[in-house]
Amino acid sequence: MNPVQVLKIGGNIIDDNQALAAFLEAFSSSGSPRILVHGGGRRASEISRRLGIEPKMVEGRRVTDAASLEVVTMVYGGLINKNIVAFLQSKGTDALGLSGADMNLIPAWKRKSGDVDYGFVGDIDPANINSEKLEWLLDAGITPVFCALTHDGEGSLLNTNADTLAAGIARALAAKRPTELHLCFEKHGVLSDMNDDNSVIPELLQSNFIQMKKDGLVFEGMIPKLENAFAATAAGVQVIIRHALDHSTGTRLRIDE
Amino acid sequence: MNPVQVLKIGGNIIDDNQALAAFLEAFSSSGSPRILVHGGGRRASEISRRLGIEPKMVEGRRVTDAASLEVVTMVYGGLINKNIVAFLQSKGTDALGLSGADMNLIPAWKRKSGDVDYGFVGDIDPANINSEKLEWLLDAGITPVFCALTHDGEGSLLNTNADTLAAGIARALAAKRPTELHLCFEKHGVLSDMNDDNSVIPELLQSNFIQMKKDGLVFEGMIPKLENAFAATAAGVQVIIRHALDHSTGTRLRIDE
Repeated sequence: MNPVQVLKIGGNIIDDNQALAAFLEAFSSSGSPRILVHGGGRRASEISRRLGIEPKMVEGRRVTDAASLEVVTMVYGGLINKNIVAFLQSKGTDALGLSGADMNLIPAWKRKSGDVDYGFVGDIDPANINSEKLEWLLDAGITPVFCALTHDGEGSLLNTNADTLAAGIARALAAKRPTELHLCFEKHGVLSDMNDDNSVIPELLQSNFIQMKKDGLVFEGMIPKLENAFAATAAGVQVIIRHALDHSTGTRLRIDE
Repeated sequence: MNPVQVLKIGGNIIDDNQALAAFLEAFSSSGSPRILVHGGGRRASEISRRLGIEPKMVEGRRVTDAASLEVVTMVYGGLINKNIVAFLQSKGTDALGLSGADMNLIPAWKRKSGDVDYGFVGDIDPANINSEKLEWLLDAGITPVFCALTHDGEGSLLNTNADTLAAGIARALAAKRPTELHLCFEKHGVLSDMNDDNSVIPELLQSNFIQMKKDGLVFEGMIPKLENAFAATAAGVQVIIRHALDHSTGTRLRIDE
């Protein structure tokens, strides 16, 4: 069975029309079955401000009150998602834009408030992802394009981190077929020296990551990304952290033997 | 083969949360294969104004410049569509939110500028609608929920009138199976007296409509709706124009023998 690729892209590429077009062209020319997951937080923040709603962030994560949920629903589910779909269609990729509510593909639950009340934020369990329906779409030659929205099954949409969503989808698919997860961003991989873009670690062992965290060598925003990614690795997913426009380098994750 | 129902709802119901919920509950409890098509122009205009973009209308139709296209993409494709999908899922309907770009279901072309340049407005030909893919979704128990967006196949989304879209979809499906088109709005049907809500015409012949138009008895906004609807009737679709929350009355269209 062909390996399936789950690619995740974030704000830095989504906000750069030329880079996004280059990424999507390469994505379209891939022969593998594939799924795209996109964020779009910067665009959401910009539109939120234009609507007079000041975005609230805690530790780099959006606090999603009812007004912010409307904004991310518009921006992720509408503006970014549908434009990516239209572009991919123009390149011959039979894209289908999705949220986790569509076909109930990704059920979630609203996060309980702890120290911080993140509002309408959805946590997911990969075991609940409707992987059969995803396989059905892939087998029909359809390329799912997910925005970072899920739902609670009771009528409310929820905002879910795009890295988490991509890792969850990859884990759900890995039970049935070889699965790769490409976490694409503006760097060429995980860096051993945050100040040196050429210090890409080609292979990162989980034990190394734990040590690097202890030593304060991992950039804060990278920690949840890598924790999700190692959970996917442990579930049999081949994880590559790489630049959106460059396949030639990147960091592969590995669980210690 | 079961008849398929294509239901179209517009702004007056979409803007009223309670009415929308009542409509969607009834929609969910129907046993027939069905497709929902929604507009959302009023909501788009409201959000457009909040973004500092004054909506431009000519003869009741939106002039869709690039900024307005972004707004309708957000509002139709994101805000309204994904919330309807989440609500339907909560009622046990396996909804899938779609634009015409998704799976290339509804190819369109940008309208040539005539007296008025409507901008990014898409015209459609029912013959180009991917009815096989729609049938495939319906046969899998999926309920497609269309927003009024199409695409030009060259990467651009287009704004298409929701009545036109619904009539086009019904015409495309009618070639293969019995198809009903329910154009739902705030009145109980086509009125013989615009000022009397109880003057619903139970059956409207095309010849009557032509005469009523000549006599100035048809409300302006109703004319393109009825022209589209009669084109669907001529293609074998059973068309009912009715109140969104009341099945008991309504106007059925008929082509003269």
